[in-house]
Parts: sequence; structure tokens; C-alpha cells
Amino acid sequence: MDRMNHRITLARRPTGTPDDDTYATDDVPVPELDDGQALVEVTWLSMDPTIRGWMAYDTYLPAIGIGEPIRSAGVGTIVESRNSRYPVGASVFGTVGWQQYAIAESGYRVLPEWMSPEQALGVYGITSVTAYVGLFDIGRVEPGETVLVSGAAGATGSVAGQIARIKGCRVVGIAGSDEKCAWITDELGFDAAINYKTEDVRRTIRRHCPSGVDVYFDNVGGDILEAAIANIAQRGRIVLCGAISSYNDAAPRPGPSNLPILISQRGRMEGFIIMDHMSRVMDAVTDLRRWNEEGEIVFRTDVVEGLDQAPTAFERLFTGANTGKVLVKL
Amino acid sequence: MDRMNHRITLARRPTGTPDDDTYATDDVPVPELDDGQALVEVTWLSMDPTIRGWMAYDTYLPAIGIGEPIRSAGVGTIVESRNSRYPVGASVFGTVGWQQYAIAESGYRVLPEWMSPEQALGVYGITSVTAYVGLFDIGRVEPGETVLVSGAAGATGSVAGQIARIKGCRVVGIAGSDEKCAWITDELGFDAAINYKTEDVRRTIRRHCPSGVDVYFDNVGGDILEAAIANIAQRGRIVLCGAISSYNDAAPRPGPSNLPILISQRGRMEGFIIMDHMSRVMDAVTDLRRWNEEGEIVFRTDVVEGLDQAPTAFERLFTGANTGKVLVKL
Repeated sequence: MDRMNHRITLARRPTGTPDDDTYATDDVPVPELDDGQALVEVTWLSMDPTIRGWMAYDTYLPAIGIGEPIRSAGVGTIVESRNSRYPVGASVFGTVGWQQYAIAESGYRVLPEWMSPEQALGVYGITSVTAYVGLFDIGRVEPGETVLVSGAAGATGSVAGQIARIKGCRVVGIAGSDEKCAWITDELGFDAAINYKTEDVRRTIRRHCPSGVDVYFDNVGGDILEAAIANIAQRGRIVLCGAISSYNDAAPRPGPSNLPILISQRGRMEGFIIMDHMSRVMDAVTDLRRWNEEGEIVFRTDVVEGLDQAPTAFERLFTGANTGKVLVKL
Repeated sequence: MDRMNHRITLARRPTGTPDDDTYATDDVPVPELDDGQALVEVTWLSMDPTIRGWMAYDTYLPAIGIGEPIRSAGVGTIVESRNSRYPVGASVFGTVGWQQYAIAESGYRVLPEWMSPEQALGVYGITSVTAYVGLFDIGRVEPGETVLVSGAAGATGSVAGQIARIKGCRVVGIAGSDEKCAWITDELGFDAAINYKTEDVRRTIRRHCPSGVDVYFDNVGGDILEAAIANIAQRGRIVLCGAISSYNDAAPRPGPSNLPILISQRGRMEGFIIMDHMSRVMDAVTDLRRWNEEGEIVFRTDVVEGLDQAPTAFERLFTGANTGKVLVKL
């Protein structure tokens, strides 16, 4: 077979911010399919902060191997198939990696006709399911509660805040620019926004959440987590979804100095990995679809074109250049 | 009435370690009883780390007022009564304060005949109920799990570890001297002990808990909490019971740098206040009594004599001079 597969691979494990030394590219022949396999032509890649962990060390998944394509969720089209579950022409979602072609064997899902690839990685994607599970199953949010969301202009945070709003909560978002703050209040319907780069986060949370924070949906960790703990309500829940502020740290940074507040306030802090909650995907997508079709959910994608731009697109997550979900279109 | 009440009162809120400036003493007349009141002659005081918080600021209870006796649990004998629930001669448990006489109105409990004052503040006391509730209701410990306990030679920690042992767990304790470590392994039946003053806590936890820590019962906070997080098992629970390492800090100290581990390990960290769980006292005391009578629980008290020694006795909690429960006998 003549078909070549262009790939972006892991050249070296990053210790700080991934840079040119982190990545390599190569072109390898697409292998012949075995029985049970299908060939996916990758069309979209999902940029997710968790990839930073996979590059560096074993986490809930083993680290990406040196020389292997960067592990990544994405969508593609079946172009050859020896598996009846993946017919030629079908759009599929799976862990495609940063490459032109992937082999689907199991673990891929055929997209329903009504769902576009951009929706599958966007408004109905894993980040939205993560927001749903984090709020309901981990945070156990109730109507009337006050919900604080960091990374509020990101893919997960923007949806988490809107779901909380739909459920009748007071919602306060934290983001990194006045534009993002205006977007989440004016277009997404958050009750208030805090620009963490220009405001005293701890005091501003107190002002916007005078009876305390019942659920803090944490996408960032670091100093903002400390500020949220300082304002936690009695029996408040902190949903540890991500800690993007620390992922590029070369050395560990001190954590929150005020954890004993969780004792006096009877607070709970809990981490989760969405992979453990795949049984909730149908519930989440059903609700998200209804809300989306009713115009209750605003979702923005930040699309970068070209496989070779994936490293640049990925970097946008960490610099905060993005609003909404970062995708790469091949 | 001529009876005078000698009291140790709060002179000044401590910022660091409480010292002579923190306390004052006075002698005030015992007031006449109103209907519904009874007069308690205090016989025993319970020394508890949480008092340090009450001295300094509002927590789950308002701070102790300046000039008021130091708030403290204790036991006494009813010597006069205008309340039929508190007959003269009865032993009662309640928030007596650091003073010779207290007024019981409500919130006092008459001790059953089989329970001595020392047992009421000791093996069947609030610290043991705290261990019980923390392990079962917050930590949701299961037989076969690995349980790590800090402050393991203290009143709460020593009982928490023994309950976990009775429930079929592997139990590792952390304490501050070789003598304490020998006590918890040789007499209390812990599987292993770590002297945090002489050993690398993180590595030693790893050695003693090769499959990770399922439940960490935290009485101390600080660096030991960080070491425990580093070793948490998947779906591990951290029971935040106390943070004695920080209570005397004049300024906040950085917290654990490794909280994102709670995400990849799906960990949960939860604080609690035993006051919220008083409905569990009967269950706890019933089980503790059975275990104690079967010889399954070893409990040690560290008794200091004389009301005026209360500040010195209290200090023993923070210097780690005590093994077991610190009590003051009047």
C-alpha cells in the first residue's frame, strides 16, 4: 500500500511548557488492515489539557511512548474497513492521535447522523459530558445553590456554568480577560464574572457569593483554588476537574494554605476522571441536545487549521488564548 | 451564696503558641440557680486541639469571648439542682469550661452508671466517637483496605487505628517518637508505624502501603498530608479530622503541592465536625463498649492534676508530649 501517514510524535517528555523539542514529525506507511480493523482518515482533533499529563508521565493512562503520535481524541471518516461496526463513509469518534490516519478496532463510536464532527468534539463532546458529570455526580449541585466555575470561558467551564444556570443556580465565573468575562455574563448568562488577572479573586468571590460557594468547579487549581476554599460555604463541594495552572510547572508549587477550612466548613473536595463515567454519556448528551436545541447553551469553538498546527493549537489552552473549545481541523 | 468559682479565662487571643499572656485567672461568685438550672462541680476536663481554634477566631462555634472561661468539654457532679433531669449526685458530661463550677441547663448528658468520668472523656469520649464517625461515615472504610492514621498515638488516632484493625484493615500509624511507634504496633496492634521525626514519611508510607492508601485519617495536616496524598490509592479517601501541625502557626503555611493527584486517582478529601454527627453517639459507644470489654481496644489517658495546670496540659497536645488522651483532674 502506498498511502503514507503523516504524524506528530512525542520526541521528548516536556518538563516545563512543551516546545519544539517536544515534538517530531514523520511519515510512515499506513499498514494493511487485519480482520476487525478499519482505517480512519482523521478530520478533526480535540485539544485537551490532559494531553499534557500523558506527554510527561503515567497518570490514569500510561504515558505516551517516545516516537508515538501524540494521543488525542478526534473524529474521522472510515475510508477502508474490515469491521462491520465501522462501515466505509461513517464518521467515528475515538482516540485518533495527532496523525492523518488511525486504525479503529474497538473503542470507536460511530456518530449519529444528527451530530456533526464539530459537535461531537464540541457541544456534545467529552468536555461537556465532563461538565455534566462533575456538576451532578461529583458536585451534587442543587437548585438555588451558588456555583463558582474557573476556566469559565473554556470548553468545560463554559458548559458547567450554563448547566448550573439552567438548574437554577447562581453562577459566578472566573476567566482571564475582560472579553472573556463579558462573554460569559452577556452571552452565556453567568450572574457575575471575575477577571483573575486584574481583580483580587478572594475578595471578589466574597462580594459575588456573599453566602459562600456551595459548589466550586475547579479547572485550574493553584491560587484560585485557595481563594475558593477561603469562600467555601458549609458543606460546600469542590469538584477537582483540572489544574491547568500547574500542568506546565517544571517543579511543584505550594498548594492552598487553608485546607483546614474544609474541616470547620465540613467541605468536600473530590477529583474525577471522565473515563470512569462513560455510563453517563447518554444522559448527558440527551440533556445537552435538548438544551442546545432550546437555545439554552451557547458553545464556541476555536478552530485551528492543519495537522502541523496542532502544537500551536494545544499551546493556546495554556496561554489562555482560546475562548471555548480548541479544535484542529485537518 | 458564698461559693466562689475559680476560672481560667481568655485574656488575649493567641496568634502563635498560647502562652502566659493568653490566659488569666479570676474568682467570681457562683450565681444563684434559676429554675431549670443545675450546678456542676467540675471534676475532669478534656484537652482537645479544637480549643485552639475557639481561642482565636469564629469557626464552627463562635470564638471564646475575652474574659470568659476557656471553653472545654468535661465531666462534673451535680451539687445543686433546680432541674429534674440533673439530680444532685449525678455525673454529667458537657461543655463545662476551665472552671470549678458550671451551670447545666441543657446540652448536658447524665453518665450511665457503668461509665466512669475518665471513660466518658476517654475511651467512650468524643475523640473515640470522632474516630468512629470519621472512619465509617466519612472515610467509608471497608475490610481489607489499607488505612493510614496520623497522630496515631493520640486519643483520636489511636482509636481510629484500632477500629480499622478490628474491621480487618491493614493499619499504618504515624507518630512522633520511637516510644509511640512501639506502643501503637506492640500494644495497639497496628501493622506498622512511622516516626515522622526521623523517617522519610513519603517513602516509608510507600514501603508500608505498597498498593496505596485507601483511607488516610488525618489529624495533623501539613507535610504529612502531602506525603499521604502522594501515596493515595485509586478512589482513596482522606478524612480531614484535624490539622494540629498548623493550629499554632502565626501565618499561613503553604499547603500540599500535589492536589492534582486527587484528580488522576479520583481521590476524595472531606472535613467533618463531630457536632454534626451526634446521632451516631449511641452506635459508636455501643460498639466501643463491646470492643473494650472484649479487650480489643487499648486506651491510654495522660492525666494532669489541678485546674491551674490546664494550660500546661493543653500545651502537651501541641508539643506531642502526650500519648493518648490528655485530661485534667480537678
